[in-house]
Formats: sequence, structure tokens, C-alpha cells
Amino acid sequence: MSHLTKIAVSIGDINGVGLSIALAAHEIISQWCDPLYIVDDAIVDEACKKLHTSKSPTFRTFELDIPIQIEAGIIDANAGRYSFASFVKGVELAQQKKVDALVTLPIHKEAWAKAGIKFKGHTDYLRHHFGRDAIMMLGNSKLFVALFTEHIPLREVPKYLTFDALEVFLLDLYETTHFDKINVLGLNPHAGDGGVLGNEEELIDAAIQSANHKIGKPIFFGPSVPDVAFTPHALAHCNRIAALYHDQGLAPLKALYFDESINISLNLPIIRASVDHGTAFDIAYTAQKPKIESYLNAVRYAIDACKHLD
Amino acid sequence: MSHLTKIAVSIGDINGVGLSIALAAHEIISQWCDPLYIVDDAIVDEACKKLHTSKSPTFRTFELDIPIQIEAGIIDANAGRYSFASFVKGVELAQQKKVDALVTLPIHKEAWAKAGIKFKGHTDYLRHHFGRDAIMMLGNSKLFVALFTEHIPLREVPKYLTFDALEVFLLDLYETTHFDKINVLGLNPHAGDGGVLGNEEELIDAAIQSANHKIGKPIFFGPSVPDVAFTPHALAHCNRIAALYHDQGLAPLKALYFDESINISLNLPIIRASVDHGTAFDIAYTAQKPKIESYLNAVRYAIDACKHLD
Repeated sequence: MSHLTKIAVSIGDINGVGLSIALAAHEIISQWCDPLYIVDDAIVDEACKKLHTSKSPTFRTFELDIPIQIEAGIIDANAGRYSFASFVKGVELAQQKKVDALVTLPIHKEAWAKAGIKFKGHTDYLRHHFGRDAIMMLGNSKLFVALFTEHIPLREVPKYLTFDALEVFLLDLYETTHFDKINVLGLNPHAGDGGVLGNEEELIDAAIQSANHKIGKPIFFGPSVPDVAFTPHALAHCNRIAALYHDQGLAPLKALYFDESINISLNLPIIRASVDHGTAFDIAYTAQKPKIESYLNAVRYAIDACKHLD
Repeated sequence: MSHLTKIAVSIGDINGVGLSIALAAHEIISQWCDPLYIVDDAIVDEACKKLHTSKSPTFRTFELDIPIQIEAGIIDANAGRYSFASFVKGVELAQQKKVDALVTLPIHKEAWAKAGIKFKGHTDYLRHHFGRDAIMMLGNSKLFVALFTEHIPLREVPKYLTFDALEVFLLDLYETTHFDKINVLGLNPHAGDGGVLGNEEELIDAAIQSANHKIGKPIFFGPSVPDVAFTPHALAHCNRIAALYHDQGLAPLKALYFDESINISLNLPIIRASVDHGTAFDIAYTAQKPKIESYLNAVRYAIDACKHLD
């Protein structure tokens, strides 16, 4: 199996749907990659019992040697500590090149807080650990949306939008994705309508030109009219989009592909992809099976990203 | 036919797809309403010849007595003047209650400009003519989005967002639609996340409470997280949305329902609905048939709106 991409899977909150997803998808993803699950065997066995399923002999684990039991659907400090340990080990293995990429199953932020972990979530830890500005990209092969600004008030967005900041973002985005063509949205309705509805499109245009010039290829185009960039016709032309703010990109993405999307951290020394859903405590270890599409897409993305780096 | 709703149809630019849509949809809409097409018979006959079709005996017209010939796909001052005359007559008939509602086929804005008409389009004329702030609502029965602000720069949006202005908007919106339940979006990502990502949600909440109190029913809810308001799950709960700015509402709407949407002017003394597409000069009077879904939805909306006023 050595020719297959090695993917570490951090197991997420063991009281949520993560283990169930990992077990259900194992056979499928084993055809694409060589997964290593960062979880103790005893917990996998306990999960199998609760889920009335069995573990494949190829379900390879990295033992953390932390004694803990599953408490389905419970927000618990010990489970928080466990999911943090699994994630940190995954980051370490990726950084040490013992695996090619990391796929993360959902953690529960409140459980982390209860455990006294000072990071708000995966991305927060990654930024701190690597000391770099990760680019947040969400979507799936049919539509990827990268965000220039993320979790800031809407009224702050125009202040962040400078030529320098946007150019750096575009160059970083190209550097870590190598997408052929990326549609950069305007800030204003109708992309400013020739300046009548705002003039930030001038600096966006300048940053696009400059980034293309530095790359030496016309990768970026725009600034495009935001509200028609997500129609079927527009996406057939280009389905890799740089959005200037959170809701500009994510509202159309989630309208179209809620269940299938993944969350990717770009611009880091490691490849990391995540499901775009939470722990779903309400259905954990019940008869209702969690959807595995987002997880499969996250694994697929991680594999593709590794090939690209070869 | 007197029991049927009387709908005036302004014919739009005769060099575009309007006449073709009106002829193709006549049989269908005649089962729902009593349409009156504001166009000269001679032009309809000319269109039929070009389109290799014939006019139904029930295709009733209001003659403008303006001599003109069709020039397929041409931006022309005379065609601009003609489409303006058809539209103004439609507004007049609706205002005089000679018809119950007006449905408008697409005009060409440049043709209006060439004809020296000082209005940018239908809505601009309606605002001027009635001296009232029309509310722009787009969508179809599966999703309607009303816009609190429209064609202003993004950076201006927070300035327009005051308690008073939003409350007036919400009350006007309810008054002219009588929707049972309307989802009011937040301004900021995650609807501010408890104030961490912006605090405008406080005044939005206050305006919602006050509007509900004045109406005497909990019509409005929110402020909701904008990027998950358009997922299938969220729309199953409420598909009537008040968006605070243009792209917040229209990007997800157009991602989901580009061909089926209509544009409605609310808060006016007349009922007016419009297709949400242009003149499509490139396919006018060719073998490629224009889509009629948007027009059918506009007619259907106008009929429903009239019933509501009874």
C-alpha cells in the first residue's frame, strides 16, 4: 500500500458522529488512500459495539493510550481533551511528513473550552501553531470558495480591502491551489456599475492585474458581479471563486451544496481538510446514520492536494 | 371572462423576445386570467410572420396607434419610445383600475436612453410617477427575497441600517405581502455571534420585536445567520426572506433559481410584476425559443396578489 497517499484522520469528538463516519467510510476511502486513524483501538471496539458493526482488519490506528469511554451525545471535558490530543498528533505526523495530509473529523468547541483548551477550534490552533495566516476555503469539486476576509463585522470589510492585502491573498491562493482560473468577485452590487455603486472595484482590478503579471498567466479575472457569479451558467465558466467577505461566498455555496462541502486550510506547511459539519450529538450512536459525503470529499481533496505537490 | 383577473401586459422592446414570449404563453395564461396586451395588432401580425406562428383569436390588444416595424435584435430609439409608451399606458390602465395588475415584459435600457427617456428603467419610472419608495422583491413561490437596501455601495449599507428605517421597511413589507412568516437576516457573519462579529443585530432584533408588536402577530423572526438561511433545511422552515443588502439576498436566490425568478415592485398603488431577464436580443426572432417560466411566474404572482387584495 506504500504507493497510496497516507492520510491521518483525527477522530474528532468520540461522543459525536466522527467514529461512525470513519467506520462507515473506511472501505471506500481505503481504495483511494492509506488511512491512519488517530484513536485508541479500545474506543473503536466500543464504538463498533454501540453501532452494531465490526472493524475491518485494515482499520489501522495510531494509539494515544488515553483511557476514556464513549458517552454518546454528551459535551464532556475528557472527550474534549481526547479530540484535541488526536488533532495535535495528526498535525505533528503531517508536519514530520509521516503522513501526507490530515483530515479532521468534527470536534465540539464547548468540550474544548470545558477541557481548558485555549483554542477556539482547529483553524485557530493551526494559525497559532504555524504562525501563519491560513486561507479558509470551502466547497467541493463543483464549487470552491476562498475567503479574503472571514470572521469580521461587515462594516469592517471595506477597511481590510487594500491593494497590498488583496494581492498577497491572491498570490497565496494561487500558490497553494494552482487553480487554472479563479473568479474574483467585486465588493459592491453589480461590481460597482462603473463606479456608480462604489469604487473599490478599481483597486480589485489593479490587484488582479498585478497578481496575474507576477504569476505570468491570466489566472484571475474580475471583479465580477457578485450576484450572478453562482448561476449555473457562470459556474460552468468558472467554479473557483475568491469572495471578499464571508456571506458573499458562503451563502450561495451553502444554498447549493450544504451537505457536500468541506473546509480546507490553505497556505499552511501541511495539507488539512475537514468536514463542513459538526458533531451531530443528536444522532450520534443512534439508528440514524450520519451522511458521509462531506468526509469522502475531504479525503478526496486531501489526496488530490498531495498529488499536486509531487 | 369578467370573473377572471384582468392583467395588462406591457410588451417590452419589440426587437427583443417579449412578443415571442407573450404569443407562446398566451394559451396557458388565458386559463388563469384575462390578458390585455398593450401593442398594435399590426406589430403582432408582423411578429407572427417572423416567428412562423399565428395569433389566437383571443389575443386581445390595446392599440397604441404608433407606426413602427420590428428590427430583430437592434437597439433602436423608436423601439425604445414604443416600449415606454406601452409601459406608461399599462401603468395608467392599472391606476385607473381598468385592469387589476400590470405585468411587464423586458425593455432595453439603452433604447430608452437613445429615445431621450430620462428614466433608467421600469422601477425608476414607478418611483417617480407615484412618488413612493417601492420595495424590490425577487424570487418565485419557492423563495422570495425582499431587499432593505438595493443599489448602494456595500460600505454604505451599515449607515442605512437604523431602527426607524428597518421598522418602516418591515411594516411596509408585511402590509403589501401579508406573508405569514418572514425571516430577517443579520448583517454580520454568524449574525454577529453574540456581538463578537458586529453589533447591528441588536437594532435588527429591536426593529423585529417592534414591528411584530405593531402588527400584533409574530410575523418576523431573526436576525438569522445569513449564510445558512438558504439551505434546503432553512428554506423548508421559511422561504420568505428580508435581506439587508443586494448581494446577501440575490446571490443565493440566483444560485438556486436563476431562470424562474420574477421582480416585483411592492408598496405601490398598483400591482406590478416583471420577468427577471432582459430582451435577449441575440435570440430574438430566431429558431431558439426563449424560456417562458419567468413570465408565467410573473403572471401567476400578479393574479395571486390581486386575489389577496379582494
